[in-house]
Amino acid sequence: MTLPRVAITQGDPAGIGPELIVRLWEDSAIHRIATLMVTGHEEVLRSAASRFAPNLAIETIPHPDAARPTPALLPCLSVGDLPCQTAPHSPEAGRQAYRAITLATDFALCGEIQGIVTCPISKAALHAAGYTVPGHTELLAQRCGVEHTAMMLYLPPPHVPGPLGLGVVHVTLHTALRHAISELNTDAIVRHGRLLHQIMSGMTKQYDVDREVRLGVCALNPHAGENELFGAEEAQIIAPAVKLLRTTGCNVRGPLPADTLLARAVRGDYDGVVAMYHDQGHIAVKLVDMFSAVNITLGLPIVRTSVAHGTAYDIAGQGIADIRGLRGAIHTCTALIHARAAQ
Amino acid sequence: MTLPRVAITQGDPAGIGPELIVRLWEDSAIHRIATLMVTGHEEVLRSAASRFAPNLAIETIPHPDAARPTPALLPCLSVGDLPCQTAPHSPEAGRQAYRAITLATDFALCGEIQGIVTCPISKAALHAAGYTVPGHTELLAQRCGVEHTAMMLYLPPPHVPGPLGLGVVHVTLHTALRHAISELNTDAIVRHGRLLHQIMSGMTKQYDVDREVRLGVCALNPHAGENELFGAEEAQIIAPAVKLLRTTGCNVRGPLPADTLLARAVRGDYDGVVAMYHDQGHIAVKLVDMFSAVNITLGLPIVRTSVAHGTAYDIAGQGIADIRGLRGAIHTCTALIHARAAQ
Repeated sequence: MTLPRVAITQGDPAGIGPELIVRLWEDSAIHRIATLMVTGHEEVLRSAASRFAPNLAIETIPHPDAARPTPALLPCLSVGDLPCQTAPHSPEAGRQAYRAITLATDFALCGEIQGIVTCPISKAALHAAGYTVPGHTELLAQRCGVEHTAMMLYLPPPHVPGPLGLGVVHVTLHTALRHAISELNTDAIVRHGRLLHQIMSGMTKQYDVDREVRLGVCALNPHAGENELFGAEEAQIIAPAVKLLRTTGCNVRGPLPADTLLARAVRGDYDGVVAMYHDQGHIAVKLVDMFSAVNITLGLPIVRTSVAHGTAYDIAGQGIADIRGLRGAIHTCTALIHARAAQ
Repeated sequence: MTLPRVAITQGDPAGIGPELIVRLWEDSAIHRIATLMVTGHEEVLRSAASRFAPNLAIETIPHPDAARPTPALLPCLSVGDLPCQTAPHSPEAGRQAYRAITLATDFALCGEIQGIVTCPISKAALHAAGYTVPGHTELLAQRCGVEHTAMMLYLPPPHVPGPLGLGVVHVTLHTALRHAISELNTDAIVRHGRLLHQIMSGMTKQYDVDREVRLGVCALNPHAGENELFGAEEAQIIAPAVKLLRTTGCNVRGPLPADTLLARAVRGDYDGVVAMYHDQGHIAVKLVDMFSAVNITLGLPIVRTSVAHGTAYDIAGQGIADIRGLRGAIHTCTALIHARAAQ
């Protein structure tokens, strides 16, 4: 069997991305599931390797075809002739991170690689470099030419008891809670529910689960609005979306009080949850396991996963950052690649 | 040592309250920490005992002084001459539940008992009986003649690793999320923070912890507003409250992104958290343990704890409801009584 080709983006050079990559590289198990390569700055990776993986050689390769990774050899698709500057929030750091993403995305778009796994970037560094895009996901959407994407946090098995893991998709994301409420609409909930249904259904084949996926939709208000005593969004916006999702064949319940729905979901009663706003989903997922959660972008033409944590400047360069997030993101990326191939 | 006297209210007669009480009563350990009695309808309790605790006798007593509880004898302070009707949402059920609460509250107010533990009620039954109060806590506040109370969910040790457990107080509660945001103000956050500080500081004596309590205040918006990119409530409302709390001697951090603060708090990094709205706190606490959480009303002149779950009509009468919530509520009630006595 040919392994899928997966590119890991270096992320912000001042963050924990490079050290996570070189530390994980020495784990031979990770090379059995994918042909891995990195898009980044070879000097940044070499510097990280010298400190945290002294037996690891960095080899610059011209094209994904040339990648022959081993635990002792890291093939690097170079971001090109950029200074090896790694000062936090610097334009140079932003430029490296930006090019690492676009390089990996472009190879994925033309089918030279099958998926990308991204390490955390710094928005401040991107802005310093003159890129005004709000964040990682928006940059990917732009590069891929799609309008609607969705952010899903995913807890892979065995971090939750459900055989498919648990996917939590967010209808609104990086916006003030006040605006998230005003922006909420039936179409957006249906669109996010469908994306969630699609990706989790794909997982059933991958994990040999012979049943429909079970989805739950969160309410916005406490007690799901307690019969409109505490808000009308459930009746006016969310319930119609759940009804529409059902007519398209989704096995979905809701709107349900978010506190009990999420508590039951992480215990294995649901395979996927539609959250109405950022913290609703994030509080639950981070509480289960801050470092095992994987961030998946839905709605892209390419497979993209990411660690769910940030650059962690406070511990960068110490070699103590948790590598489980990156390992999980690579595993999930390959699972999604296989699920997509089987569809 | 004289044990504190604690009255358990029967709650809604059609819910799981009566069966939880009689099942827990047979556990001799619970009688070593308090002199327990029940305010309720003796026939309702007798009926529950006949099914789930056949060796338990129900004895009507005229006054808390007369309570001589054993695992085989349950002293009942009677709600008086009411029909033994237990149909869900019926006026009779509402009247029983109401009188059980006011009876226990009145005995606590005049010092005849030291604390009350309440079983779940049905708002619909209270309304059917003509009591228009919004809920349990509001009824207690009214009866005790206080204006400001606060609802804290408490995870006692060892359900979280912190030696004091974890208290999560809610600045807003049973209101639409949209209104919760508009209602948020600095004074309310300070008031809730002080109540949290006071109760958790009381616990330090009870649990022999020789340090200050560590409190965290949640942000409202994702990423704590990301420097006002996603909302200004952090800078305008929450940060000033945290500053004020610090000037009054609280060891408090915030506003912090709610997802990471709560994930760290349940891992033991904080003793208390101030949540801005219902689901923010409830998602975290219910995810840790839906059945071990205790509901504590802060700001009352009496000690009151409650189970954190509801009437659970769907499983009432089956004897399968989880008794850990009630046991935890009794333990916490006695811990608070001792903490109050030591102040």
